[in-house]
Amino acid sequence: MTRFRATLEYDGTDFAGWQLQPDARTVQGELERALEKITGAAVRPTAAGRTDAGVHATGQVVHFDAETRLTALELRRALCGVLPPDVAVADLFEAAADFHARKDAAGKRYVYRILTRASPSPLRRRFAWHLRGPLDLEAMGRASRSLVGLHDFRAFRGTAGGDAGPDDTQRRIERLEWDRDGDELRLVAEGSGVHECGLDLRALGAWPCRNP
Amino acid sequence: MTRFRATLEYDGTDFAGWQLQPDARTVQGELERALEKITGAAVRPTAAGRTDAGVHATGQVVHFDAETRLTALELRRALCGVLPPDVAVADLFEAAADFHARKDAAGKRYVYRILTRASPSPLRRRFAWHLRGPLDLEAMGRASRSLVGLHDFRAFRGTAGGDAGPDDTQRRIERLEWDRDGDELRLVAEGSGVHECGLDLRALGAWPCRNP
Repeated sequence: MTRFRATLEYDGTDFAGWQLQPDARTVQGELERALEKITGAAVRPTAAGRTDAGVHATGQVVHFDAETRLTALELRRALCGVLPPDVAVADLFEAAADFHARKDAAGKRYVYRILTRASPSPLRRRFAWHLRGPLDLEAMGRASRSLVGLHDFRAFRGTAGGDAGPDDTQRRIERLEWDRDGDELRLVAEGSGVHECGLDLRALGAWPCRNP
Repeated sequence: MTRFRATLEYDGTDFAGWQLQPDARTVQGELERALEKITGAAVRPTAAGRTDAGVHATGQVVHFDAETRLTALELRRALCGVLPPDVAVADLFEAAADFHARKDAAGKRYVYRILTRASPSPLRRRFAWHLRGPLDLEAMGRASRSLVGLHDFRAFRGTAGGDAGPDDTQRRIERLEWDRDGDELRLVAEGSGVHECGLDLRALGAWPCRNP
């Protein structure tokens, strides 16, 4: 058995998120299916963090254990040949037997993009949320700054049944900053278990800060 | 009758190009359908240049004549509400009665992107051509430079039946330059009737300049 560490890129548009679900197409499900095809055995990958439906990844780190005669390079190429076009393995290495994608993560970085121009963008419709009204960037910055640091994010937890996250809802947000990039506003969020506490950072982007 | 000038953005992935075809989904076809829905009459838009299947546009200029009580702003909004998500009208103005999108074009700019990293990119799979082998950027630059200026591009004309372009195949290419942008090579091509002479600039990107 060898432990591998992989970095994934995926287009989340047609996925119900990272995590395996019985009746939905997920990134974990596609990766497991590809690994099983290649190695002939069931493989269960663990990701640094879950992503929700429609959320993309440019550097999702995962680990898994597999028994294979393939080198890491060969395994990466085989995976890229078997995975559907909306998931790819950007890199793949043999890792130490105790490497853990989630527990060893030094931090996570999320980027949220809001397109602010009048007309929608066909080329960015998978990547940016189109809001027509003027947004009060200063108010959004103030709201975001008040969340930086160690806080109890219980009020942000999902209310849907099923997986509502762990009971411990204290989390540290290291960075939560809005920037303007051309016709887009971008929110950069950094922290360790940000997602696990049930905080949906899109809620911050959606903060009703529009000027009347 | 008012002449309007519009700038279109579109994702060409699911289109058989700009130009109307009887049995294929085209940008011109979608725009005509939307204009007819809104104005109640047949409208025939003219574009600054045609684009091929799978080619995107960020600033395709078109003109058309329509009889409508809507202002240009209202017409733009109505079009954005009726057009499918892969086409949008970025701006729309009333134009002089003799404005012509193709004849009045001062130039056209095409960008071709080649992704050179080892693994494919799910997030850029609609926007960049993935080539794994090492490419000889210097040789590609030499080949491109030899095409800049006024030349007869007859040899580049499409051979397929139907629309092979005009008989006059002399065209001036003002600029044809390769640049590296991170893990991508980009070819920027500028000229006036570049497309009309049947020159498919992708052929230059595909130039067999790979190192062995």
